[in-house]
Amino acid sequence: MSESFDAVDIIRTKRDRQELSSEQIAWTLDAYTRGVIAEEQMSALAMAILLNGMGRREISDWTNAMIESGERMDFSSLSRPTADKHSTGGVGDKITLPLAPLVAACGVAVPQLSGRGLGHTGGTLDKLEAIPGWRADLSNEEILRQLEDVGAVICAAGTGLAPADKRLYALRDVTGTVEAIPLIASSIMSKKIAEGTGALVLDVKAGSGAFMKDVEQAGELARTMVALGTDAGVRTVALLTDMSTPLGLTAGNGLEVRESVEVLAGGGPADVVELTVALAREMLSAAGHDDVDPAEALADGRAMDVWRAMISAQDGDPDAALPVAKEAEQVTAEVDGVLTRLDAMQVGVAAWRLGAGRARREDPVQAAAGIELHAKPGDTVRAGQPLMTLHTDTPERFARATEALAGGWEITDGSAYAPTPLIIDRIS
Amino acid sequence: MSESFDAVDIIRTKRDRQELSSEQIAWTLDAYTRGVIAEEQMSALAMAILLNGMGRREISDWTNAMIESGERMDFSSLSRPTADKHSTGGVGDKITLPLAPLVAACGVAVPQLSGRGLGHTGGTLDKLEAIPGWRADLSNEEILRQLEDVGAVICAAGTGLAPADKRLYALRDVTGTVEAIPLIASSIMSKKIAEGTGALVLDVKAGSGAFMKDVEQAGELARTMVALGTDAGVRTVALLTDMSTPLGLTAGNGLEVRESVEVLAGGGPADVVELTVALAREMLSAAGHDDVDPAEALADGRAMDVWRAMISAQDGDPDAALPVAKEAEQVTAEVDGVLTRLDAMQVGVAAWRLGAGRARREDPVQAAAGIELHAKPGDTVRAGQPLMTLHTDTPERFARATEALAGGWEITDGSAYAPTPLIIDRIS
Repeated sequence: MSESFDAVDIIRTKRDRQELSSEQIAWTLDAYTRGVIAEEQMSALAMAILLNGMGRREISDWTNAMIESGERMDFSSLSRPTADKHSTGGVGDKITLPLAPLVAACGVAVPQLSGRGLGHTGGTLDKLEAIPGWRADLSNEEILRQLEDVGAVICAAGTGLAPADKRLYALRDVTGTVEAIPLIASSIMSKKIAEGTGALVLDVKAGSGAFMKDVEQAGELARTMVALGTDAGVRTVALLTDMSTPLGLTAGNGLEVRESVEVLAGGGPADVVELTVALAREMLSAAGHDDVDPAEALADGRAMDVWRAMISAQDGDPDAALPVAKEAEQVTAEVDGVLTRLDAMQVGVAAWRLGAGRARREDPVQAAAGIELHAKPGDTVRAGQPLMTLHTDTPERFARATEALAGGWEITDGSAYAPTPLIIDRIS
Repeated sequence: MSESFDAVDIIRTKRDRQELSSEQIAWTLDAYTRGVIAEEQMSALAMAILLNGMGRREISDWTNAMIESGERMDFSSLSRPTADKHSTGGVGDKITLPLAPLVAACGVAVPQLSGRGLGHTGGTLDKLEAIPGWRADLSNEEILRQLEDVGAVICAAGTGLAPADKRLYALRDVTGTVEAIPLIASSIMSKKIAEGTGALVLDVKAGSGAFMKDVEQAGELARTMVALGTDAGVRTVALLTDMSTPLGLTAGNGLEVRESVEVLAGGGPADVVELTVALAREMLSAAGHDDVDPAEALADGRAMDVWRAMISAQDGDPDAALPVAKEAEQVTAEVDGVLTRLDAMQVGVAAWRLGAGRARREDPVQAAAGIELHAKPGDTVRAGQPLMTLHTDTPERFARATEALAGGWEITDGSAYAPTPLIIDRIS
């Protein structure tokens, strides 16, 4: 870093709604990494960014500076193109599980570096760890070999990618600055760009169970990330999808693996299949494989073959029985009618309280805990019929889970019911 | 503190432009004092306050919580009423020196707890320390006794008043959050209210040499502080005064003491006399002494008598010669004409660079360094005539001081010159 700046000047610039130069942004993240900018200065800057925003060039510079803080991966030696997917997270969002093998079965390699869950949304690694023997941690060499041999890998992101992001995220978490769109976008995109994928499809969720409750804000985040990817030479597309109600009929680690396998076997809930196929089409198209129909690869078992190979390659047993929770409790409908609302956030919090999620990074999760839904919005139900089954190994958790569900659904005569489309918009 | 809150919730509340409750504010400052709220959380909150503001009730609660962090003084045992004055600081602002003894000579006690200077504005204590033997640090008992015996005391504010303010100010200084009006107002007013004065007159300066360059902003600060004082039961009035050009004809510690003594002797520059008498009238009126004319007490030497007693009581020698700088250099007019502009900020920075001020709290100051002005805006000057004399003990400083003055004045034919009124507004 040849030039030197003053941290207070940089904070004031953003505070006073001025643009930060490329040099200022590069210096800021480098100085933060070296400890020259203190935590209390970075948090003041993050708040100023949250409230005053950043322009496209600034966000792009910020993302590049985050990438520069760590290593880059390189998939250019692979014999096929690569495509990756990122979801902003939702309740029952197990789409990565069927999607990665499905896209690989269509000829595009999928390096899916994932994380664990925190709060009410589950993490992809937590879900796969419900499979006996499965291993999340792979070396860069193992990742490359599996991409070549199997075509798909879902594993833990190494700590070498954009390490500044990890520290900044921890700071934002305790200073009320998580919700800054420029910082969310650069946090996600810096890791995806550093990972070296050629194409990227974003699933940006909006609704009660999503990080962004509001469609407008989710759209802004999607547009910001698509611009960042495009600026970095990654073919990037985003789908804006509904997260007002859970995806599919399960929320919880082992339960979601089971549902994913059902989808790979040609069955599964309609919404999970619809979103899996839609995202697969986008990934294939972004990777230049427009001519392949992923629905066929689901129907004829090719996706399932890749799934089995992918799980086996990471020491998992695709035939092993999934864990079953020690205790179950049913929640029933109070009246006859049509289920017109089932709140994603409340189901997510209830599953979390049953043991499916963690409150702190170091907490364990229960592989079998979670919620099975027996009805979804639009379904007709009868009084006394089970609406959902709660699963946990620790029955003392039922009370707080039930509490979280209070008021979380609505049963009416159905006359005013209008289904929400799953895919709200496409941004490219 | 019976209730407990979450720091992140509190930051988010202000970030999202919501009001903080009285209980949240009390908890915030108590938790910050106890270290439960971390520096990086407080700086994010300070930035949110700077950008989103606080309402009158919130600022009042914040001020009270700062007061609660420390001790309170009590002047109710004195035989006469008390009045205090606070200036937001300016170049050549030595008004406290003649004002305190003048008001005391009119029957109102003046407890003037002051600070040292930082940056381009001098500190009252730095000025008085130019007097041989004078002592800034007094115990609470000494302050009370001197107020009873002499009627006026100018001394260092103890560390016991609003200690949370000291830590918060240091944090704001490094995080670009100094300029938040609610935080400036509560910082000033918490100390003045804790000090226990019955009446308070604020001199809020606007212009290049002031903290607030802009009259609108200075007016907002003045109104905020008057409201805070009133809410706390202190009779509070503010004068909004001009700081586009230095006050009087001197900027620098010993030089300003000399000029103050000239005013107390019935002479001195017209602007210093005007502001001293105007502020004295306000203090006397706020303390219920409307009937006394401070101009008389200046003219007949009563104010000078109190000055001499006040300096002697703090071990200073009022007859001792003031220090004279080792080196002097003159700055002359380039052309004939009327001096139509003389920039307060540039004169302040030049005086600072000559050694009159400090860049860091621990730096020493030169008692004799500073600038004497030989002309003020509106004066006719001739080419070659001295405009000012620069004084310092360290002649290598002349170059950087002269640099700071470049472009700092304007000499024209005077046809477009309109004098700025010294007192812009009165807020009560």
